[in-house]
Amino acid sequence: MSLLEDLNWRHAVKAYDATKKVSDEDINTILEAARLAPTSSGLQPFRVIVVENQELKEKMVAGALNPEVMRDSSHVLVFAAWDSYSNEKIDKVYDHHTDVRELPRGRFSSYTDLIKGMYGEQTPEQHFAHTARQTYIALGLAMAQAAELRVDSTPAEGFNNEIVDEILNLKELGLKSVTLLYLGYRDEPNDWLSHMKKVRIPMEEFVVRK
Amino acid sequence: MSLLEDLNWRHAVKAYDATKKVSDEDINTILEAARLAPTSSGLQPFRVIVVENQELKEKMVAGALNPEVMRDSSHVLVFAAWDSYSNEKIDKVYDHHTDVRELPRGRFSSYTDLIKGMYGEQTPEQHFAHTARQTYIALGLAMAQAAELRVDSTPAEGFNNEIVDEILNLKELGLKSVTLLYLGYRDEPNDWLSHMKKVRIPMEEFVVRK
Repeated sequence: MSLLEDLNWRHAVKAYDATKKVSDEDINTILEAARLAPTSSGLQPFRVIVVENQELKEKMVAGALNPEVMRDSSHVLVFAAWDSYSNEKIDKVYDHHTDVRELPRGRFSSYTDLIKGMYGEQTPEQHFAHTARQTYIALGLAMAQAAELRVDSTPAEGFNNEIVDEILNLKELGLKSVTLLYLGYRDEPNDWLSHMKKVRIPMEEFVVRK
Repeated sequence: MSLLEDLNWRHAVKAYDATKKVSDEDINTILEAARLAPTSSGLQPFRVIVVENQELKEKMVAGALNPEVMRDSSHVLVFAAWDSYSNEKIDKVYDHHTDVRELPRGRFSSYTDLIKGMYGEQTPEQHFAHTARQTYIALGLAMAQAAELRVDSTPAEGFNNEIVDEILNLKELGLKSVTLLYLGYRDEPNDWLSHMKKVRIPMEEFVVRK
């Protein structure tokens, strides 16, 4: 199968079969795709929280646009971004890079000094605007990976971030929720979008050639 | 090949062979993956500008962090997001959806009224913060598609947005540049990152299980 076939297969499922669970193996493959996502300066400034516990899901649905979709999904992935950059966080990532590559620590210091200087001039709000963007790369790759495995998914921005952050204690982890990704298997008779043609704007409108 | 193999194969190439061009067929496949990217409410609030012309590239490198990478790439994709949402833009997308699905126009009006109300209360700055995020989903899928085709790519946020917007007349199109994606074939002897191990933070740190 190809990526295009997988992307054409998938859609944002609107009804899940609550009796079907995604296997741990498939969940781990989807998480690995998210972990391999390229990010700005390689900082991976986000984490993925995996929620399988039904009680937690029931708490998280408060304020969600489509509570029954979250409720009936097998797993909820919460993509949560760093609330800010810091020199310590940047050093930790790059110390790991040099350690794995068996290079001296500080090997990339001219580059890390550059980005520390850049982020040092920005506010935490500017930091979060940037870290949040990075999560969407991983969100997209997680959806593509789910589709390759023929696991259904639904991305969701329509939820109450404050409630989710509080329930998952994200503030203590220096994280703020950005998007959710529901995973599971579609309840086809009740998933109205299963029966509709996929629509995208035409290529000639989407692309501008220079 | 699987998505994980493709993601492990790719890295952000730091030197391109300026003599090698990516075929039109491969470029179109990469654009199709970007076009199929899921987006909030299905609005696809961005466009991709394809720059192959060397003179245009030479103008766009002004202020770029790695000008020689852009200069030597085969093609530059510019992911540019809507500067704002409007009722007209939303209606245009949903009219297309209903037309393709042979449904009466207005079939989704309860939903479009909801999102029009939501965006109607927001500023253009809030709109762009949201449209810009969506481009990263397509950016990620375009990189994955390039990797599947064994086309190299380099995502880039480090460029002068004002210069790029002006050179490409993006303001007239209601767009603002967000990211670039350089495409081409690596110049392996000069691409220092080709010779280094791929590093990601460990899974047990990346994932929080609840």
